[in-house]
Amino acid sequence: MSITHEDIALVLSAALHNDQLDEALDALKGLRPVDIADALELVAPEQAWRLLERLPGRAEIYAYFDADEQVRLAREFPRATLARLVGEMPADERTDLFKRLDPKQQNELLPALAQAEREDIRRLSSYEEGTAGALMTSDYAMLKPGMTVAQALASLRHEAPDAETIYQSYVIDDERRLLGVVSLRDLILAHPDKTIDQLMIADVVSGEVGEDQEDIAKRITRYDLLALPITDQMGCLVGIVTYDDAMDVASEEATDDFHKSAGVTTSVGNLKDATIGLLYRKRVFWLVLLVFGNLFSGAGIAHFEDIIAANLVLVFFLPLLVDSGGNAGSQSSTLMVRAMATGEVVMKDWFKLLGREATVALLLGCTMAAAVSLLGYIRGDSLVALVLALSMVSIVMVGCVIGMSLPFVLSKFNLDPASASAPLITSVCDASGVVVYLYIASQILPGMSMG
Amino acid sequence: MSITHEDIALVLSAALHNDQLDEALDALKGLRPVDIADALELVAPEQAWRLLERLPGRAEIYAYFDADEQVRLAREFPRATLARLVGEMPADERTDLFKRLDPKQQNELLPALAQAEREDIRRLSSYEEGTAGALMTSDYAMLKPGMTVAQALASLRHEAPDAETIYQSYVIDDERRLLGVVSLRDLILAHPDKTIDQLMIADVVSGEVGEDQEDIAKRITRYDLLALPITDQMGCLVGIVTYDDAMDVASEEATDDFHKSAGVTTSVGNLKDATIGLLYRKRVFWLVLLVFGNLFSGAGIAHFEDIIAANLVLVFFLPLLVDSGGNAGSQSSTLMVRAMATGEVVMKDWFKLLGREATVALLLGCTMAAAVSLLGYIRGDSLVALVLALSMVSIVMVGCVIGMSLPFVLSKFNLDPASASAPLITSVCDASGVVVYLYIASQILPGMSMG
Repeated sequence: MSITHEDIALVLSAALHNDQLDEALDALKGLRPVDIADALELVAPEQAWRLLERLPGRAEIYAYFDADEQVRLAREFPRATLARLVGEMPADERTDLFKRLDPKQQNELLPALAQAEREDIRRLSSYEEGTAGALMTSDYAMLKPGMTVAQALASLRHEAPDAETIYQSYVIDDERRLLGVVSLRDLILAHPDKTIDQLMIADVVSGEVGEDQEDIAKRITRYDLLALPITDQMGCLVGIVTYDDAMDVASEEATDDFHKSAGVTTSVGNLKDATIGLLYRKRVFWLVLLVFGNLFSGAGIAHFEDIIAANLVLVFFLPLLVDSGGNAGSQSSTLMVRAMATGEVVMKDWFKLLGREATVALLLGCTMAAAVSLLGYIRGDSLVALVLALSMVSIVMVGCVIGMSLPFVLSKFNLDPASASAPLITSVCDASGVVVYLYIASQILPGMSMG
Repeated sequence: MSITHEDIALVLSAALHNDQLDEALDALKGLRPVDIADALELVAPEQAWRLLERLPGRAEIYAYFDADEQVRLAREFPRATLARLVGEMPADERTDLFKRLDPKQQNELLPALAQAEREDIRRLSSYEEGTAGALMTSDYAMLKPGMTVAQALASLRHEAPDAETIYQSYVIDDERRLLGVVSLRDLILAHPDKTIDQLMIADVVSGEVGEDQEDIAKRITRYDLLALPITDQMGCLVGIVTYDDAMDVASEEATDDFHKSAGVTTSVGNLKDATIGLLYRKRVFWLVLLVFGNLFSGAGIAHFEDIIAANLVLVFFLPLLVDSGGNAGSQSSTLMVRAMATGEVVMKDWFKLLGREATVALLLGCTMAAAVSLLGYIRGDSLVALVLALSMVSIVMVGCVIGMSLPFVLSKFNLDPASASAPLITSVCDASGVVVYLYIASQILPGMSMG
């Protein structure tokens, strides 16, 4: 299974350099479309194009190219060839490509397409990004309720080359209202004379065009579906979302949440291809916000300047105590954000979870307090050890409760809970940690002598 | 689509309390197996069991229960009933359940099962957790190369009730060696007299029993497969992994990596059901390690005690500078860990990415330096502002380079890159940040006067 696309690309480049097109095509023989796409992405666009032109199933190969690479290649194609290729692509991939072309390319391409394809692109591209409508394809298999099983199978044989899946067929009436679903498995098991309305499952799990793609993906996973039919507000079938697209959405959303957890504002796409400017823009927000968040910690420190001057040993432990709250809080928020994203935990669980989190935080805080007071005793004295222990327990508890609550609060205000990122938690815990630590110190330690 | 399982569970409990079993069963009519399972999980085990006994498709419903709930219910079942239920479950779910029972329950159950089921459980449970073998099912459809299409369809009609999918059939010889794969789509399109060896795709994408389940899931996603055949070392077919199991693996692995990113050592499973003890154990490791990591920061601070005493203003900015390195480093490592997990980035990209990361870090550092030096000038003077600016740039760059490199280093030593968690990065950046900051301060600021 260890295909190295680099090796293949080297062979391709050498063959193409010597104009040995057949040899290059030979090197790609037996490879699967996604592997061919990966190899072709490594050669120059105009050479990739020369090969693609001659490969069987080129629309499928082309559909596997990276989005950016598709657009780059599209510039190389003569207009008629591009139109033919685009015509052969699955409806959802075709629409995605079309939306990425610049207006000039779009205007050149449209007249070269068949009428049906043009309308399909217009319709599919009208849905907002991130909704079921933008994810779905219009290449699905339809049946009528009055058909016999034999007629249905004949109809599927006819539709098979175009439909994304014929394993699930959707039963619609004359107004395209979704009546039911029937699987190919049930069709081949049924008596040929039975009618579709006898065989179909009428209570279909479906989605609406305007729904969030994340909810669509979750429904497909929950019910282990091959495809989810999508209807408009009138209940008419307008497309399907297939399981493989749902897998891609789930993976994208996980990456998104992952990035947000570290304070990267939105997904940067494929990290390898991300530009310096993009990475900078996506990362700078929280980092700079944190700097200004420090105004509060700084004010706290300024307020307790005397106690610090009198007990410089406090400074040794300042980074540790401040970090501990942030670390414990990040753990809490990460557990919560992920549980909310997978749907394990919902709003009304908050109160129950808060009680448990407080207990866990108390235990974690006590353990860390034991460790830090040992260090404090070695470097300071028993009073310093006491200050550290009390501060650690309080700071960890505050951090955990903030970390656990913030995702719920954000969600309450219809914000993405994943924005409760490590840097945000750190900023909030910093300020509270400094104040708690120095306040406790000021109550226990002498103010003016050196302890 | 908004089924509230709580409402259904309330209706169920009320009906069961009055011994109105038919009414309870009515409430579940029309619901899908996974929804019934969710509702039944909310009523008492012995009541859930009374209903389950009377429901059609109960093995499928039971398979959707949480793992813990399955085991809890299994204790309620009379042995013969449990055996019948287990016999009806898909092979992979059955094995998972069996492995979770305690030895006494296992020994009671085994004799009550049919011979074939017993052997299937023994064989499937012999594979190590986390491998393809532990994930696969033995319920797949097989064909012989000499069969005609008509014979193959007849055979599939016969196998359909047991196989997890008949949309992909696997062609094997008499020694069970995997020869090819044929889709139901191709079968129903082909002439009935054609033979399977003419129709099958001989170059099958497959996996080996010992492979990591994550690699299996990635392959299924990459090639958009419905199922991946799994072979032993001899190339003999021993099972298949279906796309829905691959989706579950991908989601689990993402959760795992997510938790690790916050220093939660391994997955805690379903957060809602996690006990206090489990949460404590999984979270305490990195938090306590961080406390001891502070020995280094503390030593750094102790070394520069004089410069701090002479310039107390330095303390105001200590938490900020230390956090900034950790935050920027966490961003780098999170981006990298996720890119490595999805396979976007591999080892040999390291050098190229390092150069880009250093540039991004320089830009981020300069922006943050501008912000912090403004604060430094307001609270201190221009020398303090200079110290802060230089420190910030250095600390952010060190943090980013550490954050980016650590996942690669861990992977080089065959450790999980996801262990490069925020707390670890924080610990490392703490110590280096303190030293960098105070060293720069000691070079620029006067040692004994108050600046």
